[in-house]
Amino acid sequence: MDYGTVKTPQDLKRLDISELGGLCEYLRGRIIDTVENNGGHLASNLGAVELTVALHYVFDCPRDKFVFDVGHQSYAHKLLTGRADRFGGLRKNGGISGFPLPEESEYDAFGTGHASTSLSVALGLAEASARRGDGGRAIAIIGDGALTGGLAYEALNAVGSEKLPVVIVLNDNNMSISKNVGAMSKYLTRLRLSKKYSRIKTEIKRAVSIIPLLGDGALHLLDKGKRLLKRVVLSNKMFEAMGISYYGPFDGHNVGELIEVFSQAKRKGGPVLVHVMTDKGKGLRSAVADPEHSHGISSSDSCATHDFSSVLGEFLTDAAARDARVTAVTAAMAIGTGLEKFATEYPDRFKDVGIAEEHAATYCAALAAGGLKPYFAVYSTFLQRSFDELLHDVCIGRYAVTLCVDRAGVVGADGVTHQGVFDLSYLTLLPEMTVMCPTDGAELRAMLEFSLGYDAPLAIRYPKSYSVDREHAAIEYGKWETVRDGGYNITVLCAGGRALDIALAAAQSVDVRVVNARFVKPLDTDFLREHGKSGDVLITVEDNVRRGGFGSAVLEHLNAVGSKARCITLAHADAFIDDRSVDGAFAASGITQENLIKIVKSLELSRGK
Amino acid sequence: MDYGTVKTPQDLKRLDISELGGLCEYLRGRIIDTVENNGGHLASNLGAVELTVALHYVFDCPRDKFVFDVGHQSYAHKLLTGRADRFGGLRKNGGISGFPLPEESEYDAFGTGHASTSLSVALGLAEASARRGDGGRAIAIIGDGALTGGLAYEALNAVGSEKLPVVIVLNDNNMSISKNVGAMSKYLTRLRLSKKYSRIKTEIKRAVSIIPLLGDGALHLLDKGKRLLKRVVLSNKMFEAMGISYYGPFDGHNVGELIEVFSQAKRKGGPVLVHVMTDKGKGLRSAVADPEHSHGISSSDSCATHDFSSVLGEFLTDAAARDARVTAVTAAMAIGTGLEKFATEYPDRFKDVGIAEEHAATYCAALAAGGLKPYFAVYSTFLQRSFDELLHDVCIGRYAVTLCVDRAGVVGADGVTHQGVFDLSYLTLLPEMTVMCPTDGAELRAMLEFSLGYDAPLAIRYPKSYSVDREHAAIEYGKWETVRDGGYNITVLCAGGRALDIALAAAQSVDVRVVNARFVKPLDTDFLREHGKSGDVLITVEDNVRRGGFGSAVLEHLNAVGSKARCITLAHADAFIDDRSVDGAFAASGITQENLIKIVKSLELSRGK
Repeated sequence: MDYGTVKTPQDLKRLDISELGGLCEYLRGRIIDTVENNGGHLASNLGAVELTVALHYVFDCPRDKFVFDVGHQSYAHKLLTGRADRFGGLRKNGGISGFPLPEESEYDAFGTGHASTSLSVALGLAEASARRGDGGRAIAIIGDGALTGGLAYEALNAVGSEKLPVVIVLNDNNMSISKNVGAMSKYLTRLRLSKKYSRIKTEIKRAVSIIPLLGDGALHLLDKGKRLLKRVVLSNKMFEAMGISYYGPFDGHNVGELIEVFSQAKRKGGPVLVHVMTDKGKGLRSAVADPEHSHGISSSDSCATHDFSSVLGEFLTDAAARDARVTAVTAAMAIGTGLEKFATEYPDRFKDVGIAEEHAATYCAALAAGGLKPYFAVYSTFLQRSFDELLHDVCIGRYAVTLCVDRAGVVGADGVTHQGVFDLSYLTLLPEMTVMCPTDGAELRAMLEFSLGYDAPLAIRYPKSYSVDREHAAIEYGKWETVRDGGYNITVLCAGGRALDIALAAAQSVDVRVVNARFVKPLDTDFLREHGKSGDVLITVEDNVRRGGFGSAVLEHLNAVGSKARCITLAHADAFIDDRSVDGAFAASGITQENLIKIVKSLELSRGK
Repeated sequence: MDYGTVKTPQDLKRLDISELGGLCEYLRGRIIDTVENNGGHLASNLGAVELTVALHYVFDCPRDKFVFDVGHQSYAHKLLTGRADRFGGLRKNGGISGFPLPEESEYDAFGTGHASTSLSVALGLAEASARRGDGGRAIAIIGDGALTGGLAYEALNAVGSEKLPVVIVLNDNNMSISKNVGAMSKYLTRLRLSKKYSRIKTEIKRAVSIIPLLGDGALHLLDKGKRLLKRVVLSNKMFEAMGISYYGPFDGHNVGELIEVFSQAKRKGGPVLVHVMTDKGKGLRSAVADPEHSHGISSSDSCATHDFSSVLGEFLTDAAARDARVTAVTAAMAIGTGLEKFATEYPDRFKDVGIAEEHAATYCAALAAGGLKPYFAVYSTFLQRSFDELLHDVCIGRYAVTLCVDRAGVVGADGVTHQGVFDLSYLTLLPEMTVMCPTDGAELRAMLEFSLGYDAPLAIRYPKSYSVDREHAAIEYGKWETVRDGGYNITVLCAGGRALDIALAAAQSVDVRVVNARFVKPLDTDFLREHGKSGDVLITVEDNVRRGGFGSAVLEHLNAVGSKARCITLAHADAFIDDRSVDGAFAASGITQENLIKIVKSLELSRGK
């Protein structure tokens, strides 16, 4: 049959269960083709095809709310909810998002992007449904990795104490972003290896194969399923202890079995956790062979040679040999942040805490309190989770934790939930925190070398890549670097590599001083005294929102010292950025060579130059 | 004997176990006397006396690191670690802090104040000790309430997977700040009620009573204890499933029993959780009778009649009757935020999620997505935990969550970890967030009334109390209120009640316009256009740090529109504030009537007026 005609959950429900295997293969093909062209998350989506089909077969979306944790595994859901025709525009501007987005479809109950939110969201939506009395259920689809996040635990605690129809589908692929770590992972492994799993799987398979699957037969099967399920509810285990019925584990690629189990969970009413086992990258040989590398595929810049992350990895591995205190900490981002080699060479000094940014920050503070030298490698957007821990545990005690803040600034195709454009604001408001922005790999290396001898909280923030390595002056605490000394009193203050590239390009056309403002906190107040006099113009350029950012800090300082200099701030507006290209986002914010030239020319004009 | 001579752990270890009961009574007396004079946390400290004595008897602090979660239960520890003579200055300027503080004593391994950090800290300190090879252990003392925080769970997950000598003392008083809620609480209750508890307790008691407690006899007892303990290790329960040995529950007021158990835990080596049962307020009748009300006792302003929290509670209870959507959410702060009456009258619409601010924020977003009207009542300092959830779940989706941010600004005796001086910065940097500051109860009521009809993220931030109710203009979105129209071009822009009080008092001496800047985001740009012209002076006054705060936002705006007005910002410096009095903190920051008058007079002088 032509599976391309299955465009809505209603279409899907009209199929016979025997046809669903074919549908899954069709969806898999669409996903592979599109991701190869557009980039995106391949393995996680291939792993979630059958469970998505089964959920739509059993539940009644959008009355029943589907909440995909992280949301990077929602492609099959998008293909089945009216977006198949637009799927070719995945992650492109004007196309559909790579994550669930309520503005995009009524079938996307809630926007996701960061990990571990789905249980809180499902509980809230279930409460609202119950209060409305519309009989809606809430289904959270969460990976085993996201279950290590404290937010998920806080919510499990709440889900267990409310008697609402919340179904938690634990999609256990034992490989969520990085290899799972920690006790929860061990616990799930124990469940997975239990003999009950294979035995029950065989029994359900047999039942499914001999009984007609719709009508009375299905009902009969459900009753049989119920008896079977009772045997797999593992009494006295963690989820049960928290008041949540546990069903599983089941084969997450057996649609018939999943339909059984989800039907049972639907009838149960109260909170249920269904544990399903999936293969990440199911159906694609290369993705299965190396699921971590196919977690996120970037269509355009996957071959960028100038990645900051590789500089970090090389430096730390080298520094570890010289300095026994050096310890690397990451929250499920070992590869993304460049720590693969370090992890291999110094396994005892490499701590991947799983998706647990809060713990990572406080843990680092204690490592530093104990005399070690922790480096927390983390994406800017995920570090937001650690805000209170940075303030309360790292900064009040003034501990020598170095934050290596990767993917800072706009990030392109990952879209609105992943923009790293807030860190200059939330980091500079922390007392005792020093914030630096390297403009290239050579400078990152110099800053990291500096960090080894620096004994207080330090954040080094950088985007994924940079254009070219330049020669630099040595790092001096709180001092900026003049890169081009213009003959005129206009200075462009650049926070980061992209800002510097823009300023240097503009300086081909207009005569400006170009400064690498490598310290965003503290500011170089000597420089500002010298070049912030009456008649001077300071133009700040940054890849961060204007509110509370670098330009804002310069303004605060100039005002505090009574400077009469004029200041112009180029930054992102006070709004969420959903532009799927880095260039597009910069252009939309006017952070461009052209705009900078225009500004300088208008300044010159107004001075009659 | 004179227990006042027991001033260090060494002194303590010289006592016979039979003398420890008397020591505990002595410590209890010191705590009661001091808290009655100075304010502080009474019940939690009275509950932790025996376990603190037992821990110091068994472990070797400061080589072994004691980490008190929250830290409000560390008074006995302070009395036993060289600070007995200074204990009378508890919570006073120049005196000892109410929380652990490494600068204060080498026995305070790490500063605490917020909940749920102790396990991450203990793990980090244990790792550092292991790497140093000094044989040190780490002991986390954590309440059952703090165990509902996601941070604690993230850390449990990590503790279970590392084989380090971490001892977790779960101080289970079944009443941590507010009544515990959620599944974890039920789980602990189940353990607590297990028959094993009372039986084992009896057996250990008998053993303790018949065997000499030091020397060979003690060794013998330990072996017996070991056999007994094996029977109370509850196999297959949650902690065990996470790889952490579980001992308990034990009577937390039986010093002899505790010494047995802690000795056993010390010998165990790997991670152990010791579950002890305590009575909050043990030894003080009134505190036991009403432990929540004696959680935090304020020595000076406990009788303040103008509390914002009671206005919130009254309003929400009234609004709930009119509007079925209204739902109140809190994170273990029902009484502190004024929700007692609401909780009683609308139990189904009152959600206390426990110490779980992250979950609370995301849950609120989902409630709003489902059409309800959630009010999250939370202290400013604890809302820091929700930063990412506010950004990612509340603001990107633009959900109508109202944050009722209590204890904003400086807080006095609770000190450095509890200052609410960052929220204007971290809230205004969130796109889509509106931020309001009421100056009194009448205005808070009007803002809350406004919030009922407002359909996007909204934060209303206020300190504990206000001075007097004033008459106000109606709330108009993004518009400020001119309270006093001066005849001159100096305007004082006040964010909050204390700022307004200062400005109005100063206006008795100098001629200024006084404006209630009730909206901190968005700013009243019409007002700023009118009164931010060349020659105008704007003086902002706020109870927040300068970096990224209200004054900073005004500066950013004035700069963006090319205003030539002069702006002076009164705010707290970029530093942590440990002043234990509200007045002192304001004075130290120069946010005073006197300073404001001085500034205005110098402005007048420079203009030749």
